[in-house]
Amino acid sequence: MQFHFDGFRPGDPRVSVANPHAPLHDGDATPSQVDVLIVGCGPAGLTLAAQLAAFPDIHTCIVEQKDGPLQLGQADGIACRTMEMFEAFGFSERVLQESCWINEVTFWKPDERNPDAIARHGRVQDTEDGLSEFPHVVLNQARVHDFYLERMRNAPNRLEPHYARRVVDIEIDPQAADYPVTVRLERLAGPRQGEVETVKARYAVGCDGARSGVRKAIGRQLVGDSANHAWGVMDVLAVTDFPDIRHKVAIQSAHGNLLIIPREGGHLVRFYVEMDKLGEAERVASRNITSDQLVEAAQRILSPYTLAVKEVPWWSVYEIGQRICDKYDDVPGVGTGERFPRVFIAGDACHTHSPKAGQGMNFSMQDTFNLGWKLAAVLRGQARPELLHTYSEERQVVAQELIDFDREWARMFSDRPRHEEEGGAAAGVDPKAFQAYFEQHGRFTAGVGTHYRPSLICGESTHQNLATGFVIGTRLHSAPVLRVSDARPVHLGHAGKADGRWRLYAFAGANDLQDRQAGIHALCEFLSQSHDSPVRRHTRPGQDVDAVFDVLAIFQQRHTEVAIDHLPGLLLPPKGRFGLRDYEKVFCPDFKHGPDVFDLRGIDRAQGALVVVRPDQYVAHVLPLAAHAELAAFFRRFMLD
Amino acid sequence: MQFHFDGFRPGDPRVSVANPHAPLHDGDATPSQVDVLIVGCGPAGLTLAAQLAAFPDIHTCIVEQKDGPLQLGQADGIACRTMEMFEAFGFSERVLQESCWINEVTFWKPDERNPDAIARHGRVQDTEDGLSEFPHVVLNQARVHDFYLERMRNAPNRLEPHYARRVVDIEIDPQAADYPVTVRLERLAGPRQGEVETVKARYAVGCDGARSGVRKAIGRQLVGDSANHAWGVMDVLAVTDFPDIRHKVAIQSAHGNLLIIPREGGHLVRFYVEMDKLGEAERVASRNITSDQLVEAAQRILSPYTLAVKEVPWWSVYEIGQRICDKYDDVPGVGTGERFPRVFIAGDACHTHSPKAGQGMNFSMQDTFNLGWKLAAVLRGQARPELLHTYSEERQVVAQELIDFDREWARMFSDRPRHEEEGGAAAGVDPKAFQAYFEQHGRFTAGVGTHYRPSLICGESTHQNLATGFVIGTRLHSAPVLRVSDARPVHLGHAGKADGRWRLYAFAGANDLQDRQAGIHALCEFLSQSHDSPVRRHTRPGQDVDAVFDVLAIFQQRHTEVAIDHLPGLLLPPKGRFGLRDYEKVFCPDFKHGPDVFDLRGIDRAQGALVVVRPDQYVAHVLPLAAHAELAAFFRRFMLD
Repeated sequence: MQFHFDGFRPGDPRVSVANPHAPLHDGDATPSQVDVLIVGCGPAGLTLAAQLAAFPDIHTCIVEQKDGPLQLGQADGIACRTMEMFEAFGFSERVLQESCWINEVTFWKPDERNPDAIARHGRVQDTEDGLSEFPHVVLNQARVHDFYLERMRNAPNRLEPHYARRVVDIEIDPQAADYPVTVRLERLAGPRQGEVETVKARYAVGCDGARSGVRKAIGRQLVGDSANHAWGVMDVLAVTDFPDIRHKVAIQSAHGNLLIIPREGGHLVRFYVEMDKLGEAERVASRNITSDQLVEAAQRILSPYTLAVKEVPWWSVYEIGQRICDKYDDVPGVGTGERFPRVFIAGDACHTHSPKAGQGMNFSMQDTFNLGWKLAAVLRGQARPELLHTYSEERQVVAQELIDFDREWARMFSDRPRHEEEGGAAAGVDPKAFQAYFEQHGRFTAGVGTHYRPSLICGESTHQNLATGFVIGTRLHSAPVLRVSDARPVHLGHAGKADGRWRLYAFAGANDLQDRQAGIHALCEFLSQSHDSPVRRHTRPGQDVDAVFDVLAIFQQRHTEVAIDHLPGLLLPPKGRFGLRDYEKVFCPDFKHGPDVFDLRGIDRAQGALVVVRPDQYVAHVLPLAAHAELAAFFRRFMLD
Repeated sequence: MQFHFDGFRPGDPRVSVANPHAPLHDGDATPSQVDVLIVGCGPAGLTLAAQLAAFPDIHTCIVEQKDGPLQLGQADGIACRTMEMFEAFGFSERVLQESCWINEVTFWKPDERNPDAIARHGRVQDTEDGLSEFPHVVLNQARVHDFYLERMRNAPNRLEPHYARRVVDIEIDPQAADYPVTVRLERLAGPRQGEVETVKARYAVGCDGARSGVRKAIGRQLVGDSANHAWGVMDVLAVTDFPDIRHKVAIQSAHGNLLIIPREGGHLVRFYVEMDKLGEAERVASRNITSDQLVEAAQRILSPYTLAVKEVPWWSVYEIGQRICDKYDDVPGVGTGERFPRVFIAGDACHTHSPKAGQGMNFSMQDTFNLGWKLAAVLRGQARPELLHTYSEERQVVAQELIDFDREWARMFSDRPRHEEEGGAAAGVDPKAFQAYFEQHGRFTAGVGTHYRPSLICGESTHQNLATGFVIGTRLHSAPVLRVSDARPVHLGHAGKADGRWRLYAFAGANDLQDRQAGIHALCEFLSQSHDSPVRRHTRPGQDVDAVFDVLAIFQQRHTEVAIDHLPGLLLPPKGRFGLRDYEKVFCPDFKHGPDVFDLRGIDRAQGALVVVRPDQYVAHVLPLAAHAELAAFFRRFMLD
């Protein structure tokens, strides 16, 4: 954590200095003109708001239909990948401390000798070793909102949501010179209830859920399965003799199926309970299902174990359904160079899932983490508006992949267990196949399965062999290293904060400490001095040298062999009004705690490698250290001088 | 972190439910009658206040002479031991995130070829491996205060300090039936400035620094060295080419000595600069030393490296002096069974150090962490008042040991470096000996050197061989384990929260899973059923079974072999209004991440061991699991039925 940058300041370093030029607000009224209007204070909307709040020069407004912050969560599972993103937002430690960690999953099926009772038949580790430095955890969605809201409140512009606002209509004028989006909002509460406010925005983002008004306004539709299978979900405080109650548990019983998710605090547990199949045209709402029925179903499934429910803080019944939009923005068709997106949709507004794979909230947050830096780069004049096409291009494809996985998973989950003697051709799902599917798809449920294809902002895999463990198009897989300046063990990926910056991880070749004409030294020379350097081309005069590109170096030698006073100045750059040096850019393997990052991530030891990482932590490119021209050309594709 | 215990509650789980019976306060006036009056809002006072705030039935008041919370810290070093205590208070993660970690110390001396310049001659790890699960860190004292204040504010009684209060006088009436301490406080600010408030207290604790008014009121004196050696200390934001600026560095140069401590945020650095020797009767105040002089001295010492100071947020000049009181309470003499302490002093009020060993703040907090649970136990009717004698008995002895260490360390630090050719008999300190002394005394500087002698609350070492790594009288040295109920890797010691409870860590013998007549099963049977059981004798009816004694079990087998549904009920006790089970009391070795806690802490695998741990995390006793009568007798010595 870096602070006291521009002078010592007492108090909490997470509270930024207030921006003296922040837009003035008229009491609780929404502003009449903004850069970005976000509709919806769910996980997608808050991720975007928290991201944009990092930039004092961007005027953001976020509105929400409900009249205050969420108190009781719907979603609760937080994938490893989401924790990595929380780290970039600075609150992963808070979540780690407060959440329930999912360490193992156990599988239960009907006891072969007494099929009315259940018996444990399998136990697997929840997340494969080394998949992420973070565990899979469970925490009330409301608390995740709280952490985002705190981050927004502590940001330079002190961003706060405007609650009790309903979108009346949205107009987009593609011909308008500026502020082409006009949104009318009705106030749903307070003394000015019923009044309509008009907000003109450069961009609007609908994070307003499965019934998104923004989606309707841009004429897009969720397409997918109609569902005829009802599931109940409930959070309970209960007393039971079921021994795995603090594990994640998948139960296939003669009385239906049940998924158990332990919750934060050591006592709360979530049950997903299979209810009867619905008729073809039947809806859940017509069934009058009660929480007592859910409890009774859970008790039947858990037999011979007992379950005494003491409190049900939250419950719901839902139908399974996977649906998706074909495009996530307002530009018709594809590849239209003429028109650039002005309105986007994200999260449940463009894809819905069954809750079983625990992906709804996680995937929604990744949507807007993808969008946030792109909006910021265009608004701040760093990138061309073509960049905005990549949001829908990237996110729609990976959502479709997730939905295919989710559909299969939900089908298996809802199917009846097949007995061993029934053989392969019989109906129902083989419990062993079910467990195998779970294990195979661990990367998806951990959230690290997303793999963007080559595009404007993702390079080709020509040089992938230089760093086989940093796969282009996937998120940067962090690894433990030692920081040279203070010999502190740190995670390499944690240098990546949600600050809109690109990161160039330069892994040094074997001789790079000595050879001052090549490798890291030559790269730094190019980046600092050349007219073609992306650092020079895309960083404004007066900005810190690392304001757009954060150049980090990783040497192969022990930290005691790396003399920081002999390194290129770009690796210890002077910054801020005092020109204080930044000592947190040079790393080496952590030989003591191991393993060596060069081995772990398959770095070519002779040549080294340059790993280019996007502001949303995805690997954009892998290049030789000497590929100066290629590097410059990559950024010229979408960045402005 | 356990919560949702008595029902689901939205919001931050660290904010306790407010106590509806909390004493009513008359605006900002101090209450007229309290259980404990704490004088002074420094580290010692706040540790005590945060500890007592855990108990809704104890009425605590804390007053401070300054008119608000500290903004700029004096102390900054946080020892490993202190981090362990912060973990018990629930804010170690916050400190880890925000602080600077000290990983290595480098040693510099005059260059043999050019004695005017300095050269590095040594480098050591700051803390020996495995000494603590926490690193040695550095963070502004003001932030430590903030975390304590937040904890107090979140506690059931919402404890807040009363600022701008000066102690006028203190009277103790040893004959009084109740509230024997009368303290008069003058208001130093606000509309009622100058008014005198009178507070009657059961106990008063002076945490009011080296010039303690409380100490004077009980007629005690700080005794020790007069100092004639001046040191300057300054926090700076500076640009330098000195390569070790982010390490802790001890420099002995031809131009004087310098200690460098890197600070939080990546830029701030603290310098301790040796100034000239003072004359015999001279004081620092008479020297008119300026911060410019400190900067110049640092520049001379660092030569040939440059130092450009950009900002000096804080600086001071002090004289070295180690002083201590012979007793820390108001009872004259020793072993007086007739009279029990009513007034205590803690922290700088009873011992002062040089800042070099980084022990002032750390040791002060350990004083009141020692006192807090004792006061609470007596006030809550759990323990006899004899217990209060042990505060001075334990803390005064270990402070003397620390001062002896500190004196030698400070002497070495202030001495001139001896050249190699001068040989052993010459004056000055050998740089190698200096480094060796530092390494040898790592346990002291890490804060884990404290070793209480056998007493009312520390047993004899008769059975120490059963658990050689948990030394009676030292702090519980935590170790990694796996929690059986959810297969989560946790730290065994982190079960110990600052909640005033005793912890009985029962390490199972090899056959304890099977043998239901001996070992753990027999111990749990005794503790649950016997009339002699300390759990039954000292826990009130209606309290949770673990309200006074938290019984935890550690088995030798893999977690998959420990069937929690076959364990004694005491290890999964029903608690709270719903009788929800507590699943966080059973552990096993973490075979995956290793090492095995039984090997690491030398537990007798055949017999197992019972490790009795005090509320302040110190090991009180090691006993065989079957020593039921000895266990009961130990607690009968000082606890009430």
